[in-house]
Amino acid sequence: MSIASAIDALRPLFGNRLATSEALLEQHGTNESHFALALPDAVVFPETTQEVSDLMRICNQHGCPVVAFGTGTSLEGHHLPVQGGISLDMSRMNRVLQINAEDMDVVIQPGLTREELNVELRATGLYFPVDPGANASLGGMAATRASGTTAVKFGTMKDNVLALEVVLADGRVIRTGSRARKSSAGYDLTRLMVGSEGTLGIITEQTLRLQGQPEAVSAATCRFPSIEDAVNCVITTIQSGIPMARIELVDEMMVRGFNLYMKKDLPEAPHLFVEFQGSAAGVAEQSANFGAIAEDFGGSGFTWAEKPEDRNELWRMRHGGHYANNALQPGKKTLATDVCVPISQLAEAVTTAQRRSRELDITCTIVGHVGDGNFHCGCRVDPANAEEVARITRFAGELADMALRLGGTVTGEHGIGLGKMKYMGKEHSPDALDAMRAIKAALDPNNILNPGKILPPPHPDGDANAAQ
Amino acid sequence: MSIASAIDALRPLFGNRLATSEALLEQHGTNESHFALALPDAVVFPETTQEVSDLMRICNQHGCPVVAFGTGTSLEGHHLPVQGGISLDMSRMNRVLQINAEDMDVVIQPGLTREELNVELRATGLYFPVDPGANASLGGMAATRASGTTAVKFGTMKDNVLALEVVLADGRVIRTGSRARKSSAGYDLTRLMVGSEGTLGIITEQTLRLQGQPEAVSAATCRFPSIEDAVNCVITTIQSGIPMARIELVDEMMVRGFNLYMKKDLPEAPHLFVEFQGSAAGVAEQSANFGAIAEDFGGSGFTWAEKPEDRNELWRMRHGGHYANNALQPGKKTLATDVCVPISQLAEAVTTAQRRSRELDITCTIVGHVGDGNFHCGCRVDPANAEEVARITRFAGELADMALRLGGTVTGEHGIGLGKMKYMGKEHSPDALDAMRAIKAALDPNNILNPGKILPPPHPDGDANAAQ
Repeated sequence: MSIASAIDALRPLFGNRLATSEALLEQHGTNESHFALALPDAVVFPETTQEVSDLMRICNQHGCPVVAFGTGTSLEGHHLPVQGGISLDMSRMNRVLQINAEDMDVVIQPGLTREELNVELRATGLYFPVDPGANASLGGMAATRASGTTAVKFGTMKDNVLALEVVLADGRVIRTGSRARKSSAGYDLTRLMVGSEGTLGIITEQTLRLQGQPEAVSAATCRFPSIEDAVNCVITTIQSGIPMARIELVDEMMVRGFNLYMKKDLPEAPHLFVEFQGSAAGVAEQSANFGAIAEDFGGSGFTWAEKPEDRNELWRMRHGGHYANNALQPGKKTLATDVCVPISQLAEAVTTAQRRSRELDITCTIVGHVGDGNFHCGCRVDPANAEEVARITRFAGELADMALRLGGTVTGEHGIGLGKMKYMGKEHSPDALDAMRAIKAALDPNNILNPGKILPPPHPDGDANAAQ
Repeated sequence: MSIASAIDALRPLFGNRLATSEALLEQHGTNESHFALALPDAVVFPETTQEVSDLMRICNQHGCPVVAFGTGTSLEGHHLPVQGGISLDMSRMNRVLQINAEDMDVVIQPGLTREELNVELRATGLYFPVDPGANASLGGMAATRASGTTAVKFGTMKDNVLALEVVLADGRVIRTGSRARKSSAGYDLTRLMVGSEGTLGIITEQTLRLQGQPEAVSAATCRFPSIEDAVNCVITTIQSGIPMARIELVDEMMVRGFNLYMKKDLPEAPHLFVEFQGSAAGVAEQSANFGAIAEDFGGSGFTWAEKPEDRNELWRMRHGGHYANNALQPGKKTLATDVCVPISQLAEAVTTAQRRSRELDITCTIVGHVGDGNFHCGCRVDPANAEEVARITRFAGELADMALRLGGTVTGEHGIGLGKMKYMGKEHSPDALDAMRAIKAALDPNNILNPGKILPPPHPDGDANAAQ
């Protein structure tokens, strides 16, 4: 009954696909955010569902933690094995199993990344729209209930996962959902697993909804006199019912990051990056309607990207935000906030965030999937500077409190992981957390699936267990 | 520890809002489908969340079953108290608590019906789109994961419930979700409760997503030479990406029902009922594109309904399908099937259903939310005629098997209730059912919330427990 005995039992099954080299342990114990290194005891590379099932059965018997690993691009330390055990690297389970073009769905393995999937789909005229900045694994995206720039039109992973194959804590394999577009057949285990961050089961197969390439697409950037004008333009646009495909806020600091990191020369002002999709006439109509609203809020300098390569370049720049952020103060890490509020509260939320970051002397960018009411402050932080860490943590906590006060959530898309566990007790009542704990205990009684994540311990001092 | 002792304990709290009159018991123990009368021991009319909480606490202590009751329009006997106990009639908790027009959401109590809500919203320019045929309570709609004609555009209750207040089995009150459009803050308890049919908690408050009234709307009926032509027109339309607001199949028998019940004179042929929404130019473009596809499949006799009153009449007719069905063979009841398949399989599914119903000499209509791959056979049945019941049950079972073979589900929107419990073990593996049972046991350890529904008993003979 130990991690060591579990690894001994796993060795004959996985041979050299069970690794304990220092480099591999470190690769799987590090993260893109500010969390401390947390090493697994071994990294295992399964190739089949049966192997994941065998591994879970053995680890459950031995009480050995198992943490799934996709691409390691999580921003809240989800994949860090803080209690040791196995880092289950899903990168070899990365096949497209079935493309059902007529039904606009696809069956894939979870180690596949979103960009890899879209390359595979290229010949079909279909694509998978959900796009967090990173080229994340689709398993990781499901596990964190990820979204990105297109959620305003297509929803999040919650809306785009039709079915799952999941290995439970004791090795049993279940299927949830189906290829039908809707069902009322029992509890929605698909939606329970999506966003459960590897704490309720290991996803080994996913059926995803696809979208057809639109007849016409047009994208643009435009700048605004102030961030408040930009946000008010977004609010009016959404309330007008213009079916935006994308509507992204980029503040002047983020523009500076793009200019530095990607050798751009955009004016260092607040911008909106927008995209319209539909028929040629529909796109023209939407663009004109949006243009009129933007003008009302002082929008200017419209730069249109109609050719695919220009649009790709525009969104490549936007998706590079995390890395462009690093260019602003090289050597530091990023602590990214992720609040999401009702759209009517967005101007207050964004302007408060900008004002408080300045008052607290925090270098941060503000970018957001503002059509959903979701935005991020990418705060530059030196993990070794305790005072700075405390100041930024205070700022992040203030934003979380504000989001809850405004009727929103502490995390729109990044998930809880380690970093936001301290807010769980603010967003959810003790009884709601206990309901989540009861479900966790029912499905993982030995607490081996990504232990130490999402749910703070069930007592008033629970917050102290959070990462920082 | 009995139902009687629970009722004794509840009496002082509810006074004459706890009723045991024969008429009320019967009203709450009957149903619109073919299931036998199942009487509660008492009907209770709560007025506040606190009262529901008090009631659950007491019933949990006494082991007394509690079954929520909305409008009683369920088609699978969800609300029948098959183990007696309390029928919790939510009709007095029917207020609109908060209209957030700027955020396009509304907070309501679960006893409110969808039509009542839309009357309340009239002045705002907003509406709630989900529309099962019946004027159901919104609590019941959430509990069964209902949908209807507009799901092809706006999704089901799963997609339109943002947040819930739920009373758990032991009386604790939790809130799930928020008014933010998305969140990654822990397990998705909202989606777990939606579709749980009152077996995991009692919904006492709902926050719902609203839609803006579109600038332009146009609806039409057109007829086809055969049901196969109509379905193939649907498949092509969906695959072409035309953003249909509604696309409904109505077979010749259903048209006969409309003609009889509503004094119409539609040609008795397979029809599609369609609706387009958007800008004026967009609607014109969509209509033209659909018209061209329909023509390819022999569609003719287009009748356009552009005025609101004409459209309302069209959809009132469609929503009257259940009652029009009764007009075909008065005195009988309806057993409605509800399979949903991937769209590419729809022609096979519908034509097989029509052929088999004729081979088995079953009088049935076929209607469907075919843009989702979902259709219903409304089979006329005399519950006293054992041979007829057996024949129709066999037919329904064949359709369920077919749906699963084609990658679909045994219920697209009606839910499991009593009637489809026997298919749960076909759609879900024993391990998946056990996962659902574990969740049920974790949240309702005394099995007092709508016992005897959704989950068949955990042994191979479990199907025998189903209603028939």
